[in-house]
Amino acid sequence: MSTQEVIPVSAISGFPEFTPAERIEEIKMLDTIRQGFERFGFSSIETSAIERKEVLTAKTGGDVSRQIYGLHRLAAGEGEDASTELALHFDLTVPLARYVAQNYGKLTFPFRRYQMQKVWRGERPQLRRFREFLQCDIDIIGDGELSLMADAEIPAVIYNIFSRLNFGGFLIRINNRKIPVGFFASLGVKQDQIVLVLREVDKIERNGIDRVAEQLGSIGLSREVVERIVEFVTFRGTNHEVLSHLQEMGGINELFERGVEELVQVVQFSGQFGIPETNLSVDPSITRDLDYYTGTIYETRFVDHTGVGSICSGGRFDDLAGLFIDRHLPGVGISIGATRLFSELLGAGIVQPQQSSTATVLVATPDQDTLMPQCIEIITMLRNAGVDAELFTEKQELSRQLRFASQKGIPAVVIPLAEDLKKGEVRFRDMRHGNQFTVSRELLAQEILKFVSGKL
Amino acid sequence: MSTQEVIPVSAISGFPEFTPAERIEEIKMLDTIRQGFERFGFSSIETSAIERKEVLTAKTGGDVSRQIYGLHRLAAGEGEDASTELALHFDLTVPLARYVAQNYGKLTFPFRRYQMQKVWRGERPQLRRFREFLQCDIDIIGDGELSLMADAEIPAVIYNIFSRLNFGGFLIRINNRKIPVGFFASLGVKQDQIVLVLREVDKIERNGIDRVAEQLGSIGLSREVVERIVEFVTFRGTNHEVLSHLQEMGGINELFERGVEELVQVVQFSGQFGIPETNLSVDPSITRDLDYYTGTIYETRFVDHTGVGSICSGGRFDDLAGLFIDRHLPGVGISIGATRLFSELLGAGIVQPQQSSTATVLVATPDQDTLMPQCIEIITMLRNAGVDAELFTEKQELSRQLRFASQKGIPAVVIPLAEDLKKGEVRFRDMRHGNQFTVSRELLAQEILKFVSGKL
Repeated sequence: MSTQEVIPVSAISGFPEFTPAERIEEIKMLDTIRQGFERFGFSSIETSAIERKEVLTAKTGGDVSRQIYGLHRLAAGEGEDASTELALHFDLTVPLARYVAQNYGKLTFPFRRYQMQKVWRGERPQLRRFREFLQCDIDIIGDGELSLMADAEIPAVIYNIFSRLNFGGFLIRINNRKIPVGFFASLGVKQDQIVLVLREVDKIERNGIDRVAEQLGSIGLSREVVERIVEFVTFRGTNHEVLSHLQEMGGINELFERGVEELVQVVQFSGQFGIPETNLSVDPSITRDLDYYTGTIYETRFVDHTGVGSICSGGRFDDLAGLFIDRHLPGVGISIGATRLFSELLGAGIVQPQQSSTATVLVATPDQDTLMPQCIEIITMLRNAGVDAELFTEKQELSRQLRFASQKGIPAVVIPLAEDLKKGEVRFRDMRHGNQFTVSRELLAQEILKFVSGKL
Repeated sequence: MSTQEVIPVSAISGFPEFTPAERIEEIKMLDTIRQGFERFGFSSIETSAIERKEVLTAKTGGDVSRQIYGLHRLAAGEGEDASTELALHFDLTVPLARYVAQNYGKLTFPFRRYQMQKVWRGERPQLRRFREFLQCDIDIIGDGELSLMADAEIPAVIYNIFSRLNFGGFLIRINNRKIPVGFFASLGVKQDQIVLVLREVDKIERNGIDRVAEQLGSIGLSREVVERIVEFVTFRGTNHEVLSHLQEMGGINELFERGVEELVQVVQFSGQFGIPETNLSVDPSITRDLDYYTGTIYETRFVDHTGVGSICSGGRFDDLAGLFIDRHLPGVGISIGATRLFSELLGAGIVQPQQSSTATVLVATPDQDTLMPQCIEIITMLRNAGVDAELFTEKQELSRQLRFASQKGIPAVVIPLAEDLKKGEVRFRDMRHGNQFTVSRELLAQEILKFVSGKL
């Protein structure tokens, strides 16, 4: 035991860390997400966590740039390069723009990329706000132009992933930014007010329509305009009904009509991608907070776990990287906030970790003095057969070893005992049911693979 | 085209980024590493990239602490908490120690953990030195004690992984720190000189034995002592020969004898784990640079690709987390420097990226006006059958679409044409051989799965 003073350790607020058991579930989720991305032909990129400060702050407003973590060396060394200020990226979109601009000549367009990386924001810590979190983003970037087919494929990726994740029913809500913007303009809402109106409408889910209507009034909109906005954004029905309603409104203005046309096409193609209408709903109240979006917009929520909030969202943008390259690069994409999603799923008990190791088997070592070579031989055979297996390395009583397996949630224990080995057998304990039986040593790997697949 | 000024982008030295094609190979490598870790019962943890400064600097000497990146908010907000200084982790060992101390009550010991994360060091950029790089670490941590069996299992993990990675022959060299330390002490080398001697001996590979002998002289060791050290560390032979030699030396001192006893046992058990002697060699010249290690030490290199240098190394340590918790937690572990390894493999042409997407198939859309629904139906069927497939979304000539597939290295293109579809068929182009034939639409998924597995 050390007698020196111990430095106290505790969690830093906003920097989530998971237990090994939770990590197993998180990895399963991330593997499913990655598989979905790859199934649709997206290529992985990883950008450095660190960017030049001027790249990160090129476009962002005050709020975000206040959250950026800048870097400095704790003790400056000789030859320090102070001219380049570095900072941690706060999202994956600015780095994507920089990466695409920098590697333009090496990439093939349309460029489908996925990116699953941590990002950092120096937010004031509060519930559901993390300072470090993992984002899983996909985008399809066109060179000069990008067809609406891309807009239709994005929800197909989301449908594929969330169906396979099996966290329960989910609904992808879809809209086109041109529609509300065109409509609000037609009501005489001024250009600079439109952003405010979009932002308020985006809060309907959270604050309720009455509160939003009130806020719209306080922006300075007349009662009649507010009423028409409320009526417009609360219209609901089947996708066919909502789209027909929008088409029938007609003659609003060019922007509106273009938005409706685009939305009709995207929804039609999305259906052909196999997304049932129970999972894709046209919703005129979806506006998305970011100015960035110029066409199709998406937002996804669980049907039952309403407390979880938005689980993935995104949209179409006109110009990815105009700040970094003299090319017109339109795109469409979506982002899954994996850390927030996973934390919510854990908190709500929707994900329940069972095992703190992927091991199917613990090979116990009740008789280390004489049987260690046999134990090692058995576990090596199992591993070579593709079984994740842990060896109990310490000299301890069998009961203690079984408790170890049980604490870690390892479902099976192999117990090599001299009496069984003499007969060419080995003892096998099913920890879930407490059964114990002997298995031929030669067939052990096969039996365990059966056990894993639930067939033993 | 935007007319605004464009912010120039370029790589920041020391922060490696890979192309999508390189990423596919990197991901394959990382998946194999992860699978190896899990096969041996290691559990994943991820610690936050950011730690309190006092945690990171608690134990590290001046050199490393000069490399630590501290964090500051670009613009301080209201209610800023200046009392906690944060910094980026520079390795995964200090975070592991902090994590284990913090979660001690939740963990089951021996605790086998793997951790694959980026770390950051503000080094002066130079060849083979990165400022951001991925490390893949495993450690087995005991509570109070940890058997030598753990030391024997670590090289078995490495053997499993590098055999499956298939980058060519590799040799895990093994030693026990107690042996050289005991031996040098027996020669009268003073305590404070021993660290310097270990450090010099560690450079034999790089600088040659003559240069090292010269350096040892300049530390102040007598010619006779230097000669005996040189003789000792250059002894080579089969594992049996080297171990016998060490055992025969006998009577050196207690530390030396204990080291030899441990090494004999670890090498014996390692053999039982199935590591052939061609992959595991006892080498008295392996000393490892870090004071941290107290017993078994490992270093692994490729047999043929000698320029790549050390590809993974580690050892046994007495006390993981004494700075953070009043518990004696001995452990043994190893670290793969994944970014450096991968960069070297790329540079040496040992890894040769082929495809910039995992997609096996591009579904071309030569006739978007009339056949888009059929194209979408076909690609959805393929994806549902488990094929990674990309849809060509843009309206372009078929030749252009084929060039797209070829640029991305996608091995097959499905070309839905009206004349084929009428007959219930679809055209299939093998891009590698330039063959083109029609396949029954119903059997397409099966045929492509055959094609993927090389059976078509």
